[in-house]
Amino acid sequence: MDKNHISHQFDNELENLRNQVFAMGGLVEQQIRDAVAALTEGDTELAETVIRNDHKVNRMEVEIDEECTHVIARRQPAASDLRLIVAVIKTITDLERMGDQAEKVARMGRGLANMERPRSGYFEIQTLGEHVQTMTHEALDAFVRMDVDAAIKVAKKDLKVDQEYEGIMRQLMTFMMEDPRTIKRVLDVMWAARALERIGDHAKNICEYIVYLVEGKDVRHISMEKMEEKVRGS
Amino acid sequence: MDKNHISHQFDNELENLRNQVFAMGGLVEQQIRDAVAALTEGDTELAETVIRNDHKVNRMEVEIDEECTHVIARRQPAASDLRLIVAVIKTITDLERMGDQAEKVARMGRGLANMERPRSGYFEIQTLGEHVQTMTHEALDAFVRMDVDAAIKVAKKDLKVDQEYEGIMRQLMTFMMEDPRTIKRVLDVMWAARALERIGDHAKNICEYIVYLVEGKDVRHISMEKMEEKVRGS
Repeated sequence: MDKNHISHQFDNELENLRNQVFAMGGLVEQQIRDAVAALTEGDTELAETVIRNDHKVNRMEVEIDEECTHVIARRQPAASDLRLIVAVIKTITDLERMGDQAEKVARMGRGLANMERPRSGYFEIQTLGEHVQTMTHEALDAFVRMDVDAAIKVAKKDLKVDQEYEGIMRQLMTFMMEDPRTIKRVLDVMWAARALERIGDHAKNICEYIVYLVEGKDVRHISMEKMEEKVRGS
Repeated sequence: MDKNHISHQFDNELENLRNQVFAMGGLVEQQIRDAVAALTEGDTELAETVIRNDHKVNRMEVEIDEECTHVIARRQPAASDLRLIVAVIKTITDLERMGDQAEKVARMGRGLANMERPRSGYFEIQTLGEHVQTMTHEALDAFVRMDVDAAIKVAKKDLKVDQEYEGIMRQLMTFMMEDPRTIKRVLDVMWAARALERIGDHAKNICEYIVYLVEGKDVRHISMEKMEEKVRGS
């Protein structure tokens, strides 16, 4: 085999890795959407499906992880390609944990289906769920296109999601205080809100890997403003 | 440089990586210990120290991460060494998140210091904190010695920690129902218990990387019994 041929195969392998991440991400998105629907609609059957499907997400993580190790061992890639592979390893860890959180939402949904429904019909969970699901979709889209601007935009949304979450928690706490008989139920809603908020954090992590990958700058653990400054070089 | 010399340098680099993980782990252990002490003793100053020190944990993660990428790019290691480096990358991600959880416990401790103390004096948080701190220490110890038996032992402890956590949550919920004026305070204790339980999960993750590393078997996402079976080959 000539060198071009090998290099072409390697490109294919990297492209393949990226596609696998996108497929895993698609499944995780589906899990989030279904988990939120199961909770807000009191659909226990859908909740069961989400819980049952979590192992698929886990299996995809293990498979992609193995594939990454094989590609590194086989191709001995240069630093820039290596960085892509390390970003893939990190991204799928976050995706797997997003899947765990979706499963948690489904478990809460299964429990809540047998309890009294609040008048709001879990409107706040519906909205928060839509926001983190959009963040997840956009983060994966930015990952596949390696679009730093899009990644920063998505990462910024996490601030809004955090504020939304804080608002929901305050409101839920008021419900508890006003009617202590709701404590058990409201606590389950709190755990679900918490799980959705964590999904937003993981989506933000993925965005940070993109910036690190494209710009070669580690933006983790710094504020959003500093992250943007660092990327813009200003 | 002859080949032995290069290989010796590489061994040093791997040894160095392992030591850095151990140092980062030591800091995380300290953070957990201090966060729990800050909460149970109502020590706001100690809580502030923990919150301030979290950036040290973050910085160590970034440094070790960079070092891992450099070692792979420079040495083009064989599959087995590569697996060690990937295990290091995964382990420090968990350590960093354990640090985040310790910071959360400290934040809860800072808030709780200004509220009425329960008669129990947060005994349950004290005990849970000690258990996850021991798990963390033993997981790191197993990592440095690459001891699969020890790793499985530690991972098994996570089941006990989960049960302990469930018990604490049930008890706290009863407190809330009995006296709704305590809701705000008890919720903070719940978040702290939750954070400690998550630290146990991360310690378990590290143990699973050790098994994967030594046995070359991926034990993530399977039950503890299956994990042991798989390792024992029975």
